[in-house]
Amino acid sequence: MSEQLAWGRRILAAQPFNRLLGAELTAFGDGFAELTLEVRPEFGQQHGFIHGGVISFLADDALTFAGGAVLGEAVLTSEYKLNYVRPASGERLIARASVIGRGRTQAVCRCDVFVIQGGQEKLCAAAQGTIVKVAEAPPGPA
Amino acid sequence: MSEQLAWGRRILAAQPFNRLLGAELTAFGDGFAELTLEVRPEFGQQHGFIHGGVISFLADDALTFAGGAVLGEAVLTSEYKLNYVRPASGERLIARASVIGRGRTQAVCRCDVFVIQGGQEKLCAAAQGTIVKVAEAPPGPA
Amino acid sequence: MSEQLAWGRRILAAQPFNRLLGAELTAFGDGFAELTLEVRPEFGQQHGFIHGGVISFLADDALTFAGGAVLGEAVLTSEYKLNYVRPASGERLIARASVIGRGRTQAVCRCDVFVIQGGQEKLCAAAQGTIVKVAEAPPGPA
Amino acid sequence: MSEQLAWGRRILAAQPFNRLLGAELTAFGDGFAELTLEVRPEFGQQHGFIHGGVISFLADDALTFAGGAVLGEAVLTSEYKLNYVRPASGERLIARASVIGRGRTQAVCRCDVFVIQGGQEKLCAAAQGTIVKVAEAPPGPA
Repeated sequence: MSEQLAWGRRILAAQPFNRLLGAELTAFGDGFAELTLEVRPEFGQQHGFIHGGVISFLADDALTFAGGAVLGEAVLTSEYKLNYVRPASGERLIARASVIGRGRTQAVCRCDVFVIQGGQEKLCAAAQGTIVKVAEAPPGPA
Repeated sequence: MSEQLAWGRRILAAQPFNRLLGAELTAFGDGFAELTLEVRPEFGQQHGFIHGGVISFLADDALTFAGGAVLGEAVLTSEYKLNYVRPASGERLIARASVIGRGRTQAVCRCDVFVIQGGQEKLCAAAQGTIVKVAEAPPGPA
Repeated sequence: MSEQLAWGRRILAAQPFNRLLGAELTAFGDGFAELTLEVRPEFGQQHGFIHGGVISFLADDALTFAGGAVLGEAVLTSEYKLNYVRPASGERLIARASVIGRGRTQAVCRCDVFVIQGGQEKLCAAAQGTIVKVAEAPPGPA
Repeated sequence: MSEQLAWGRRILAAQPFNRLLGAELTAFGDGFAELTLEVRPEFGQQHGFIHGGVISFLADDALTFAGGAVLGEAVLTSEYKLNYVRPASGERLIARASVIGRGRTQAVCRCDVFVIQGGQEKLCAAAQGTIVKVAEAPPGPA
């Protein structure tokens, strides 16, 4: 395991909310992050699909990690936008996020969320957002 | 309790993911929905604040309920955007969402998420998104 | 005219693109900005409605002015999201933007764009975005 | 010129606002659209960069054309989000938009806007949005 991946996994392990949901950092580095989440029955919404909140959580976290891969550990998601492309059903979610532009204190990132069902990977959501360094500004935009 | 509130609560109770997190529908009707969530230690991120994924979940669900209040039960969030306004710490989150424009098959909604700390209510996130009826289109854009 | 309104109008007058389109700053101050634009035939799209690009321009500029009203002159829009609520037809567009949360270097703002037709004001678009100070960061996120 | 490109150019030529600004459809088809715009002095903002309104217009229109390439002529942008990645200076803007997911009545699209300066192409903005068919719903969400 690369040093950067180990570092990313320590950060993820320090998130109590992620311990509740169980995402794993499966790739990390060079303005890129991939999170993988095993789907559990308690992740559903009322129609049997995976709840949007689970997908949003994964996209948001992947965006933050991608930004952190270029800006350092002290980052947070300032804002993001997410389109649900199709209702998600399956065994596993994979969120892949990349930096598409960066400055000294922020990075613009995109994320694709895929659902794996019967070995097939399908895009279920697409996100785009801004990750900001918190060392140079007080934590958070306000 | 109004009939509409009872109906909304039945839908929320049917979401396994919400049973895991525990939000309550505290107001509902007339293009408006309010969700309240007691903060638990497992909702944190690595710096001790409430994880963005919890806030996004609550905003997304409140947007869907606000849209559902005018479009009916068979709705889902098509897309939304969220700005984290400040890091959130406190005992409770309240998401208040309203319809600002609607057509026959979709509604544009806004949502404010507040964190309550020591009795003080502070805005911690603001969202805007589109809720679509799924009866008239197959579930989801794809 | 208040000193702040005069200052805002000088900035607007210094935008060549606005000289082409002709928006006026009709209110400004205290985390609020209102831009008014007389609709001209060359602002149309192919179905006879006002082109989305005209509405976006007005929303984006109003967001920047609202942010500038609390952060100072050296600001720019970092990102925004816009929902077209209805096709716009009419004599005049009015964009009203407000700061809903701010920090030292950025402000989260919302904007409603109204179209005026026969004296009736109707919401035609809603936007939300982030305005950033450029003095403390090099101009632009990258 | 392909039949589809000719068809796209007829639609663009029917937009009065585009006749004012002058974008050309330089590629079109298969869930993809490229618009190119020669930068003129009247497109500037107060700091000498290209006005965000010009960039938004181009991104929005490219998103609509990409969606139209799979959904047909009767489409409009329902909503979009745009991040300005860097201040834009140069001779030409190119917006490239692609469909990333589609259903029967809507398409989720992404767009990258590049500025060309001295032959160098640099990303200056990134957008993501929803294009909807207007034949099956009354024009616009409301």
